[in-house]
Amino acid sequence: MKKIGVGVLGFGTVGAGVAKGLLENADVLRERTGLDISLARVADLDTTSDRGVALPAGVLVSDAMAAIHDPEVQVVVELIGGTGVAKKFVREALLAGKPVVTANKKLLAESGAELFALAAEKGADLFFGASVGGGIPVIRSVRDGLAAARIDTIYGILNGTCNYILTEMERAGRPFDEVLAAAQKLGFAEADPTLDVDGFDTLHKAAILAALAHGFQPDVHNLPVQGIRGVVGPEDIALAGELGYRVKLLAVVKNAADGLELRVAPTLVPASGMLGSVSGVFNAAMVHSDMDDWTMYYGRGAGRLPTACTVIGDIADAARNLAAGTRRPVTMPRAAAAPRVKAPGEAVSKFYVRLSLKDAPGSLAAAAGAFAACGVSIASAMQHGTSGGFATVIVLTHEARRAAVDDALAKIAAAGVSGSAPACFGIEEP
Amino acid sequence: MKKIGVGVLGFGTVGAGVAKGLLENADVLRERTGLDISLARVADLDTTSDRGVALPAGVLVSDAMAAIHDPEVQVVVELIGGTGVAKKFVREALLAGKPVVTANKKLLAESGAELFALAAEKGADLFFGASVGGGIPVIRSVRDGLAAARIDTIYGILNGTCNYILTEMERAGRPFDEVLAAAQKLGFAEADPTLDVDGFDTLHKAAILAALAHGFQPDVHNLPVQGIRGVVGPEDIALAGELGYRVKLLAVVKNAADGLELRVAPTLVPASGMLGSVSGVFNAAMVHSDMDDWTMYYGRGAGRLPTACTVIGDIADAARNLAAGTRRPVTMPRAAAAPRVKAPGEAVSKFYVRLSLKDAPGSLAAAAGAFAACGVSIASAMQHGTSGGFATVIVLTHEARRAAVDDALAKIAAAGVSGSAPACFGIEEP
Repeated sequence: MKKIGVGVLGFGTVGAGVAKGLLENADVLRERTGLDISLARVADLDTTSDRGVALPAGVLVSDAMAAIHDPEVQVVVELIGGTGVAKKFVREALLAGKPVVTANKKLLAESGAELFALAAEKGADLFFGASVGGGIPVIRSVRDGLAAARIDTIYGILNGTCNYILTEMERAGRPFDEVLAAAQKLGFAEADPTLDVDGFDTLHKAAILAALAHGFQPDVHNLPVQGIRGVVGPEDIALAGELGYRVKLLAVVKNAADGLELRVAPTLVPASGMLGSVSGVFNAAMVHSDMDDWTMYYGRGAGRLPTACTVIGDIADAARNLAAGTRRPVTMPRAAAAPRVKAPGEAVSKFYVRLSLKDAPGSLAAAAGAFAACGVSIASAMQHGTSGGFATVIVLTHEARRAAVDDALAKIAAAGVSGSAPACFGIEEP
Repeated sequence: MKKIGVGVLGFGTVGAGVAKGLLENADVLRERTGLDISLARVADLDTTSDRGVALPAGVLVSDAMAAIHDPEVQVVVELIGGTGVAKKFVREALLAGKPVVTANKKLLAESGAELFALAAEKGADLFFGASVGGGIPVIRSVRDGLAAARIDTIYGILNGTCNYILTEMERAGRPFDEVLAAAQKLGFAEADPTLDVDGFDTLHKAAILAALAHGFQPDVHNLPVQGIRGVVGPEDIALAGELGYRVKLLAVVKNAADGLELRVAPTLVPASGMLGSVSGVFNAAMVHSDMDDWTMYYGRGAGRLPTACTVIGDIADAARNLAAGTRRPVTMPRAAAAPRVKAPGEAVSKFYVRLSLKDAPGSLAAAAGAFAACGVSIASAMQHGTSGGFATVIVLTHEARRAAVDDALAKIAAAGVSGSAPACFGIEEP
């Protein structure tokens, strides 16, 4: 049985999970791959803290560069995160012709094109299954299971922190700040939750899914991203619920002949559908293609062992290729095939709009007139209570362009009939 | 770019889908695999009917054996079905050292051990992704994504006909026979629906999932299987709904130190959970493992293009292996590691029991006494109306052995307090 040595860079949460999986489930891996995949080195500057995993003597080292070049290491696993030394080490391993497995979504979203080009040049595999969806084999499923399909739509609930917070806000009817504080105590949210709750983590993952499905590298610095902090309140969650919807922080990747929609925003989805049923820290990606209609992949989007499970699945692929003397062709990104990314205003969907209108004759007519003037067709308009002389009115639109809805909202603001600022969320119904 | 020729045996629904996919999405497949995978031969006794796919001249032939041995055919795809000539052709291809892709669940469930042994002996791949779940890449996800994980539980909604019928029975409150007739008119059920509605199709798929997860070939002729025909009525669907459950025809594969539960039966699952949300013809498999907690795979369990999509995913794998001069190690079944399959009575779960009890003092006490005497702990007992001197009583049990519940039901029958026969379904709450 061929022996393949693995070098893990970064002995943090996921690194410890990968070490534990490789050590404790080596028998499973041997049976399923026909290879002896073993943990050769773990590199981390901190070589003393207890991570709850007993490494064999000599495995833990502090010098990542030495680990990369160690002849016992044939597959390099980057679990450091960020775009600093992580990028340096990934480049170093690829330059040495060693296959790399990474879970680093930020690195791929920002430098994927450069790294895939280097991998192709050096004939080394670059696997990234755990960069999106943690323990969910979505990258693998899209890449291999849908190998012959043209993907047109991807919806993703890709951030466990946000989904947990939204689920708790709905369950308990509590505001964002309170739920965030509780989530932080439970370890479901970081001390600095910006990357999660303001949508950037979801955006990085959406960019990778878009790259995989459409073969180009989106510019993540120029994509529309809206998180849940300061955007989604218990009021909209409750009103959406009355209408049969749930609010999810949704990544949307929709391709059509006239361009690609790629955004992250709080979005209403049917509460009783598959996306609406994804609750708590769980994540899911729902994919539509010309051959396979809708498929969905669901599981834990983060966590030590789930993420490690996906990383080891990639290690197994890299090891199989090494053993066979082959590699996986690089299919992303290919700049030549880049689709046009639509401007945010070009997005087309139904919309949920919450208006605060003066509780006086003519207010609703003025609002309805503004929608009509902008070519936005209203499916329903319902009043939900009044307070301090203002009525809350929920407008559901038929399919409309985001820019037209925004224009209508500007007209309503200018008409002097509104109180507090409106809320506006897209509705997606796979 | 290396050229790999594909020979498709069987130009039926899925065969035509595979031909269409290979012809129309050849560009996608080239980009993603780096190989020129082309349709070399399609063999079918009927070479004249229109299948809605225009094959290039010379591709359609009537002689499957000649197609298998054609030097232009490097990957053989068996889409004939059944265990007669299909088995002969699969053996013939493997004997010739050619990799085989099949969607034939019955063949694998009954002769998997023999065919995998032959594939191993001849060094040829045998892929079967579309045999379970149609367009859902569940086989691939379990095999590769969970390569390092020990799987303990699999729940599957694996038959689109049954799930469609159950969904419609709930939606319209109509009985099985009416909904089946409507489903047959819509093409969602076969003229002879036995394989589907009596659970055998689901059982074949469950056996393949069990083989994949636990490395042995279950004896499908000696496994407990219950379908939905004559078993599930609108009354139980409605009562389950009141309790927050849905009735699904569920495949259960649960492994523990004392043995493996493997069965197909109508089962209650939480209506608002992921399994409960799988409606209509859609299918899903939910998998729990030591590393990856719960993951779920959802999509169309049948249909021309979805099934063809998964078949082509397998063709791509076989082609990659051919191009690299390697193959996938056979990991199923390994009889040495076969777990003990538990007897049906050993199954442990909560149960839903619907009793018809004489509407007279002492009836409920007698029933409760029977459960107690058999060591079955009752979580709740609720009366739901009376009719003709009999009361409908729904008993929900705590976790109990199926044999103990059956004993209790026998005692109740013997006590002379019941009217019509009871209904008893397990409850699974992933």
